[in-house]
Amino acid sequence: MRSGIDVAEARMLVLEAAHPLAPETVSAGQGQGRVLAESIQSERTLPPADCSAMDGYAVRRADLAGASAARPLALPVVFEVPAGGRSARALEPGEAARIFTGAPIPDGADSVVRQEDTELEGERVRMRIEPRLREHIRDAGEDVRVGDEILAAGDALGPAQLGMLASLGRTLVRVHRRPRVAVLSGGDELVEADGDPSGGRIVASNAYSLAAQCVEAGAIPSNLGIARDTPEDLERMLGAGLDADVLVSSAGVSVGDHDHVRPVLEKLGCRLVFWGVNMKPGYPIAFGRFEDRRGPLVFGLPGNPVSAMVTFDQFVRPVLLRMAGRSRIFRPTVRAILEEGLEKKPGRLHFVRVALERDGHRIRARTTGNQSSGVLRSMTLAQGLLIFPTEASSIAAGSEVDVQLLDPDWLARETAP
Amino acid sequence: MRSGIDVAEARMLVLEAAHPLAPETVSAGQGQGRVLAESIQSERTLPPADCSAMDGYAVRRADLAGASAARPLALPVVFEVPAGGRSARALEPGEAARIFTGAPIPDGADSVVRQEDTELEGERVRMRIEPRLREHIRDAGEDVRVGDEILAAGDALGPAQLGMLASLGRTLVRVHRRPRVAVLSGGDELVEADGDPSGGRIVASNAYSLAAQCVEAGAIPSNLGIARDTPEDLERMLGAGLDADVLVSSAGVSVGDHDHVRPVLEKLGCRLVFWGVNMKPGYPIAFGRFEDRRGPLVFGLPGNPVSAMVTFDQFVRPVLLRMAGRSRIFRPTVRAILEEGLEKKPGRLHFVRVALERDGHRIRARTTGNQSSGVLRSMTLAQGLLIFPTEASSIAAGSEVDVQLLDPDWLARETAP
Repeated sequence: MRSGIDVAEARMLVLEAAHPLAPETVSAGQGQGRVLAESIQSERTLPPADCSAMDGYAVRRADLAGASAARPLALPVVFEVPAGGRSARALEPGEAARIFTGAPIPDGADSVVRQEDTELEGERVRMRIEPRLREHIRDAGEDVRVGDEILAAGDALGPAQLGMLASLGRTLVRVHRRPRVAVLSGGDELVEADGDPSGGRIVASNAYSLAAQCVEAGAIPSNLGIARDTPEDLERMLGAGLDADVLVSSAGVSVGDHDHVRPVLEKLGCRLVFWGVNMKPGYPIAFGRFEDRRGPLVFGLPGNPVSAMVTFDQFVRPVLLRMAGRSRIFRPTVRAILEEGLEKKPGRLHFVRVALERDGHRIRARTTGNQSSGVLRSMTLAQGLLIFPTEASSIAAGSEVDVQLLDPDWLARETAP
Repeated sequence: MRSGIDVAEARMLVLEAAHPLAPETVSAGQGQGRVLAESIQSERTLPPADCSAMDGYAVRRADLAGASAARPLALPVVFEVPAGGRSARALEPGEAARIFTGAPIPDGADSVVRQEDTELEGERVRMRIEPRLREHIRDAGEDVRVGDEILAAGDALGPAQLGMLASLGRTLVRVHRRPRVAVLSGGDELVEADGDPSGGRIVASNAYSLAAQCVEAGAIPSNLGIARDTPEDLERMLGAGLDADVLVSSAGVSVGDHDHVRPVLEKLGCRLVFWGVNMKPGYPIAFGRFEDRRGPLVFGLPGNPVSAMVTFDQFVRPVLLRMAGRSRIFRPTVRAILEEGLEKKPGRLHFVRVALERDGHRIRARTTGNQSSGVLRSMTLAQGLLIFPTEASSIAAGSEVDVQLLDPDWLARETAP
């Protein structure tokens, strides 16, 4: 087991153990947010035929040579193109056909004049422009041809991808399974949120924040509940989490004498990979795994609420995203101007909770008050985690810093473009 | 009814009609992603008593004056502080007490030496440092005091907020209702995704992408299905959507002769506010509302797949976010370097689909190929929408441009910090 390693090494060790989960078949409608485990080739041509991109009139361009607002030209409207079907006959010279967006261009026509550039007068339509060749015509296969690879394995399914799958007639897709995470709280002092907090007992609130972090990362959490500090209780409850993909315990795995978690995990077959990462908050984080993937990846997170959230964010979140098949597994980062000076001892990377403010094209960052790892409130006010590098001892006010975005929506302007 | 208005005016008109929905009470566990309709005052002090921030030993600081790694000082370990309870007696001078993270500081102790700075020798512990006063002690109420406003009405419930609510013992919260959106497709040429596409019929794929956009915005979509181009069918199907908060139809509301939507809506009591916005893609978008909020907000989106998605994104999405109680309702924007020159006619704001690439601290943007509003594939490849302003006619390669981020995760570095 390694101890006192840097954040980068710890991240490497956890990601080394994380693999995309096996595919499953789901209906496309259930696939939102999932990641494709297959590539999608089209069996269709889209649009299936040359079609109109506008509501208007299909014409022969030569008939409108020289037409303008000052000198409109009128053509008889001889038929209407049915939506989703072929026209009964071709368009002859000197004729116009009423057409709607998406309807197939009749034989003979080579351009569309949109509604807005026309005026209907009885059975004739006055055209105020001379269209370009094939203007407002979408070519058959412009979007998709048979055999095109439309989506690649590894693509995440968002609205555009789901619309695309529907238009190809794909109602079932192979996607990576969502990771299942078992969350365990450990400690004799803990009660559930609706429990009695008298006598110095505190709520096992980490189970709630960690479960929400799982959901945000697209995983499925289950709460194993609160284990008491006895080997028997721990073995029973940890054992209940062994069929999950990831087992997260908060508190428990530490150097404390009360720590029965490590021997129980080892008895269950889990090998501890590291304990202790040079970071703040969150030094006492442990990571273990089973030989030959015979059990879940195991994270022993610190008990302090902020430490638990930050270590989850740095190590468990990328693991869950990788298991779900995603390639972008880290938090988005931005550069920001730090509004105040910061100091620390070298040797640990600090994740400093910061509130962000937009200032024209620049972003300003200031700390969210008390940075104690017990003060969860500092997380509720933070839009980002400032990276205060391991070996640095100070950052001057006005410096540019890297900030991991916890809430990318924050980048939105208050006013719209 | 207004026609041919600019994007900013259209946005103002739709947002003027959008209000946060009435609150409902949900269990905190079901509250993730919802927005508080009440402020949360604490009825608890957190931590409830002075407590240890570390596993280690509670001491009287004066007993360790001058202690160092070179000259450690040893104290007898006289008792262990029970987790979640008071110690049986106070710490006397010259004594140490075993303590674990979160446990209450015994009377008499004024500092904690963490485990890593000690060495246990039988019943005595050697301390390698002289702690500062109250080092590693969290003060009672450091996080929260009784009566503190912990969360404000309008705060969104993320992991930190849910952990905070749990620690306060709040299991029920008042949040804004999620908007319900009825999605209707209109057109004789349309079939469902599993329908027969022969004879030039096409899948009503907008219903799928729009439903997914609703879900991404936290709303609850329901698919009304495909209405045929008859007043009777439209009246029946639009009528089925009148109890929703928002009614979205794709295609239908246009200047086309086939458009029975507008008269049907008017018959049902809906007043059209505007038709036609100076934008591309998406000019033929319509917006209507009912007097005295007696019906849903109604959006008639264009039928072209990209136009439907982009107009939803610009107008329906902020409306849904405002209904859900959110204050940041627009897409995050970033500045990017445009890699190619762009030209257009002045008079319409263009939303250009772009792929983004990170280049150190800069972001580079290039168009995702064919920008036809029928080509949904260009949306599947886009991470952002470039704003090509209404009155501009060209943007030179190398210029800085504003880009709305469709996928903020894209801002992540490939490698971790």
